[in-house]
Amino acid sequence: MQFTSRTSTDGVTERLFTLPGVSGTDGGGVPGVLWTPEGATGPRPLILVGHGGGRHKKAPGVVARAHRFAREGGYAVAALDAPGHGDRPRSPQLDAAVGELRNRMQSGGDVSAAVAALHELLAGQSVPEWRTALDALHRLPDVGERPAGYWGVSLGCGLGVPFVAAEPRVRAAVLGLNGAETSAEAAARITVPVEFLVQWDDERVPREAALALFDTLGSPDKTLHANPGGHGDVPAFELDSALRFFARHLGG
Amino acid sequence: MQFTSRTSTDGVTERLFTLPGVSGTDGGGVPGVLWTPEGATGPRPLILVGHGGGRHKKAPGVVARAHRFAREGGYAVAALDAPGHGDRPRSPQLDAAVGELRNRMQSGGDVSAAVAALHELLAGQSVPEWRTALDALHRLPDVGERPAGYWGVSLGCGLGVPFVAAEPRVRAAVLGLNGAETSAEAAARITVPVEFLVQWDDERVPREAALALFDTLGSPDKTLHANPGGHGDVPAFELDSALRFFARHLGG
Repeated sequence: MQFTSRTSTDGVTERLFTLPGVSGTDGGGVPGVLWTPEGATGPRPLILVGHGGGRHKKAPGVVARAHRFAREGGYAVAALDAPGHGDRPRSPQLDAAVGELRNRMQSGGDVSAAVAALHELLAGQSVPEWRTALDALHRLPDVGERPAGYWGVSLGCGLGVPFVAAEPRVRAAVLGLNGAETSAEAAARITVPVEFLVQWDDERVPREAALALFDTLGSPDKTLHANPGGHGDVPAFELDSALRFFARHLGG
Repeated sequence: MQFTSRTSTDGVTERLFTLPGVSGTDGGGVPGVLWTPEGATGPRPLILVGHGGGRHKKAPGVVARAHRFAREGGYAVAALDAPGHGDRPRSPQLDAAVGELRNRMQSGGDVSAAVAALHELLAGQSVPEWRTALDALHRLPDVGERPAGYWGVSLGCGLGVPFVAAEPRVRAAVLGLNGAETSAEAAARITVPVEFLVQWDDERVPREAALALFDTLGSPDKTLHANPGGHGDVPAFELDSALRFFARHLGG
């Protein structure tokens, strides 16, 4: 793990890093970013943030969320570019999967199967990458081996569900804006507390599919928050709620 | 409005009162209770709490909730015995409606229509009673004419939906644990912010009916919180959430 820059803004220190290539992935390094409270020393819970489709590790929503988690919760927060996103090359397979999704969206057809295929393709790389990132981040003195959390909706949920199911160090997750087609089998294996976001009028995820994914989660402690509006209209108070959810389950 | 007792416990003052008989109801007085922060003076938002079926104005859940709203939020909180509940006489019509509901529950049949009939019967009395209570409580110097809130689930939702729909002084409501059969028409007329609770494995309210009632609410600002477990298993953190919901919409 190699750090390439360090800056501080509004009480939060941001470090860019590159993970070495992870076996079974595209072979290149994985660009990531770590946020911690400025001047922080000693271990603290780490929250991993998965970005949305077509976005990247420093998308405005990711940065805003990371700043609040670090500044208000005292957490370490990390994000990676998903395979084929941000500063990473796109493979021919990914181009084909994205093309298929675009075609179905333009033709007004059912996109569920195309989204599921895309998420499955990417998760084959992203799950081992997140696990490698967790290994490396937990060795840092200002992160340490405290319980970890995961926040990811939409693509961040599609890739997050198999990651959270596979990774016992993640003890709580905020997920949502995704349907059962993409990850039902992995969702059933999740047992940690989950806060699950649904947009009631989501133009991309059928309401029934989102409710079915919540239903499938194996967690005895899961809570669903549904709000009116489309895929991008999650209200601001849900970020307040996520902070309290992580405080309940990871400590502050 | 006649006060009959005043006691203080844990920083909260409790006053029992009787409202004069309300036209169109059973004609007797309506027993109620008002909680305020001990030593409070001056106006403050009022939260009205509707109790569950077979319970009453001082059921343990109502008292616990009222104490937290008063002590932590600084609110005035009031509850009334619903018609036929607590210290109030049961009418032959109510006995018949409750008997019909019991028969259907024992025979394992669909109880939705019986619940709807019971709620409609009671709401014909309870809506004018709550409105009269609001008139009287708003005249008290330590309550005043600030915006009001309503908290009620199960029967408290069945009676709360037509009340909130009819009463413009109520500016925010926590509702839930009830289905669309009992109040869809009134729900569509509600436009104030609503936090709506669903129990995912509710043995009394079919999941689809609860989701349909949320869907029917006319409020542009509504949020649904669903949690695993049966009708009585609403998790404790939902009370924290209700406090924050009222703080957002009524002020502290």
